[in-house]
Amino acid sequence: MRFNRLDNAALSELRSVVGERNVLTGRADLLCYSYDATKQESLPEAVVIITDSRQARELVLFCNRRLVPLYARGAGSNLSGGSFPSFGGIVADFSKMNRILSISPDDLVAVVEPGVITGDLQRKVAEFGLKYPPDPASADFSTIGGNIAECAGGLTGVKYGVTRDYVLSLEVVTGSGELVRLGRPTLKDVAGLDLTRLVVGSEGTLALVTQATLKLIPMPESEAVVRACYDSLEKLAAACGRIFARRIFPTTMEFMDRPSLDCVRDYRKTDIPLETDALLLVALDGSAAEMQSQAERVKEACLEGGAFDVRTALLPEDRERLWGARKAISPALYRIAPRKLNEDICVPRSKLPEMVRRIAARAGQFPTLKVINFGHIGDGNIHMNVQHEDTEEDYRLSHQFMASVMPDVVELGGTVSGEHGIGNRKVEFLPMELGPQVLELMRKVKKVFDPRGILNPGKLLPAGDTEIETANGGATRA
Amino acid sequence: MRFNRLDNAALSELRSVVGERNVLTGRADLLCYSYDATKQESLPEAVVIITDSRQARELVLFCNRRLVPLYARGAGSNLSGGSFPSFGGIVADFSKMNRILSISPDDLVAVVEPGVITGDLQRKVAEFGLKYPPDPASADFSTIGGNIAECAGGLTGVKYGVTRDYVLSLEVVTGSGELVRLGRPTLKDVAGLDLTRLVVGSEGTLALVTQATLKLIPMPESEAVVRACYDSLEKLAAACGRIFARRIFPTTMEFMDRPSLDCVRDYRKTDIPLETDALLLVALDGSAAEMQSQAERVKEACLEGGAFDVRTALLPEDRERLWGARKAISPALYRIAPRKLNEDICVPRSKLPEMVRRIAARAGQFPTLKVINFGHIGDGNIHMNVQHEDTEEDYRLSHQFMASVMPDVVELGGTVSGEHGIGNRKVEFLPMELGPQVLELMRKVKKVFDPRGILNPGKLLPAGDTEIETANGGATRA
Repeated sequence: MRFNRLDNAALSELRSVVGERNVLTGRADLLCYSYDATKQESLPEAVVIITDSRQARELVLFCNRRLVPLYARGAGSNLSGGSFPSFGGIVADFSKMNRILSISPDDLVAVVEPGVITGDLQRKVAEFGLKYPPDPASADFSTIGGNIAECAGGLTGVKYGVTRDYVLSLEVVTGSGELVRLGRPTLKDVAGLDLTRLVVGSEGTLALVTQATLKLIPMPESEAVVRACYDSLEKLAAACGRIFARRIFPTTMEFMDRPSLDCVRDYRKTDIPLETDALLLVALDGSAAEMQSQAERVKEACLEGGAFDVRTALLPEDRERLWGARKAISPALYRIAPRKLNEDICVPRSKLPEMVRRIAARAGQFPTLKVINFGHIGDGNIHMNVQHEDTEEDYRLSHQFMASVMPDVVELGGTVSGEHGIGNRKVEFLPMELGPQVLELMRKVKKVFDPRGILNPGKLLPAGDTEIETANGGATRA
Repeated sequence: MRFNRLDNAALSELRSVVGERNVLTGRADLLCYSYDATKQESLPEAVVIITDSRQARELVLFCNRRLVPLYARGAGSNLSGGSFPSFGGIVADFSKMNRILSISPDDLVAVVEPGVITGDLQRKVAEFGLKYPPDPASADFSTIGGNIAECAGGLTGVKYGVTRDYVLSLEVVTGSGELVRLGRPTLKDVAGLDLTRLVVGSEGTLALVTQATLKLIPMPESEAVVRACYDSLEKLAAACGRIFARRIFPTTMEFMDRPSLDCVRDYRKTDIPLETDALLLVALDGSAAEMQSQAERVKEACLEGGAFDVRTALLPEDRERLWGARKAISPALYRIAPRKLNEDICVPRSKLPEMVRRIAARAGQFPTLKVINFGHIGDGNIHMNVQHEDTEEDYRLSHQFMASVMPDVVELGGTVSGEHGIGNRKVEFLPMELGPQVLELMRKVKKVFDPRGILNPGKLLPAGDTEIETANGGATRA
């Protein structure tokens, strides 16, 4: 298919449809919307500031009439290209639709606009003694709309699951321009097909989310953290099983491998013993009365499995200190090599050590790359970071390395993306995981919502036989 | 559309396709599959015992070739007509595909065939110190396949959610006969559209489930129960908010109204004071150390809100005793009037007292009916039981009463079905809840999976303009 350019007539129609002051076309403005956290770059032809759901609907209808691609964008912090304007067209900026419309402690529900920053919602509901559990590392800048589009995961997935598990109802504009409400603001609801969760994780390819009703839970009273050092990742992984076997259900179980620890050591002082090959961090929550004893039992489980230097922390400042190395990893990584691919493969938890071994074996064939693994061992979700110099050659090699790892992921029963999404960056790996029949089902479902294919083209699903063309040159590295 | 009858040639082909001994056509056999828990009756033309996924696929292909309707059935215990053979054709009996294929304490995952009884799975994983949280009241006889088809809820939805939240991956045969795997056996997975949860709750209208990978959690160490009596449902409902405000997250919060209590009193001895207008039951779980103190705090919260006769129980036999009245309600209801409609409307929790008031007001117009409300106040899920004599007139009145309540449910932000499903029994109420645009989206999605419309026709979604005809007379009360 071939999209149309926004010529002057189209731009003038666009302005009258969505409000003149909501349309940005200046080069400086467009540049601000030309990239996302994957650092790909491609200029959109216009940006529309979304002000309300009816205006969003008018925009979708316009894009259908004119056959112009449309990309929803919150904070643009996604890591897979989800909000990146690959094929020109219009970026719909939802960041100004950022009101928390209601918080109901009785119903354990919040109603929000999509541009609300996730961390703002977390803090606001905390004032009511409530918790919005999904906790992506980007919470302080990513938006609820973006979290819904990507089905964001994060640190507390072990116990609390992911964004999908907290979305009760959505107001959306479908790709064909219908403004509809999916689901009900109730904790149970089986009326008809579950289109609500179908939209969650659909990366803006089915519909634009204009309002979300989210499930909250009572804020746990207390937290605790346990940090344990191991001389092998196998021993660390076995500790997770030992903790579950004690009937303890942590919110978070994180690991860092030796290269991650070395990287942090180069960046700041740590108190982690040098002989540590793998670091485990376990977070717990619950009633104040039980935190001490639970933390002790986790410590026992760790020691039993060969951990050394096991520390527990109950007070906030002590917990922060134990989290130090984990929190420092991202800035530390950035300092040593600003260009990196951050992958988020996910395997069944028991397969994580084997996966890391295979990553190391593949990495051996790419001596110029530095591969660092850390992440959410509690859900088998590995953040495999490939550091490279800012050259085309190194980028190519990084990509080649990453591609070489994906068949292992799939063979071990895993997925090429646990939480970052597919975007345009991982779309090539999808066929090996899903197979042609499932992909075809997904393409047909996409067509139900977006028959003309204007929403986020080339994302989430391989285009199949369709070649997407655009008049303005298309995407770099898309 | 008009389905075809299974003539002799078709039956002979069917036998060769699915195995002669797997086809039942004797009248006595067919009778066993002619009803479900809604007590509707309609004979299928044949029953096929499903032995494996490839045979299930052959059956679906056969039904496509011959244009014969196909109904998946587990235990047939569904309450909305989901497994009822409304239009003749073939019942696919999955109850023999009942193996638990694996339980992995390391991955917190179980792989099961669809015919596994939910209670059997719960007990088996408990041997490993694990818990499969969804707990429909039917757990001792309903199957995992049926639970997935209906997205079964149950008692522990407050804290643990519903079946949807525990389905990681499915092997299914789509309505067009494709045998595919949806999702991955990992705790996080955002690769492509979420077709896994789309199939959950689709009532066998999109695909037949032939295998499921389910998420488990570590079994909590201990439980506690608190029972509190109130002189009004408003005070009881307010207690739920008070409990959450103390940052306590119960697994279960159940209520019974005065007619429910009277009904139980007629059936067996209870120790519930006669002045009780509304009974609250709260179940807690967690570490052994905190159960006593949590139960005391729930008791405090109840007393603060005007409860009387508040009792707590930690030991299994004491907990059972407090649950006594709630567990007796179903047999007690059955004894006084074997014909009943058991509805499962669900509203935002704060709206539950208002909903019950409206139900009472509507019921006043139907003096021959007895309406009894109990259910899951923690998720706003009311089991509204309408008792009636076994006459056509009383059935008609019951139905008329039920229909009169549904607009109130929708007006209060609720859903016509929280957990029983739509089946054919509630299909007429769906348009008022979902509206024509959402229904049309659902119909189109259905068509993607089942283009010829052979899977469970007339269920879950109103047929729209299509009239369904069958040669053998169709359904009674369908």
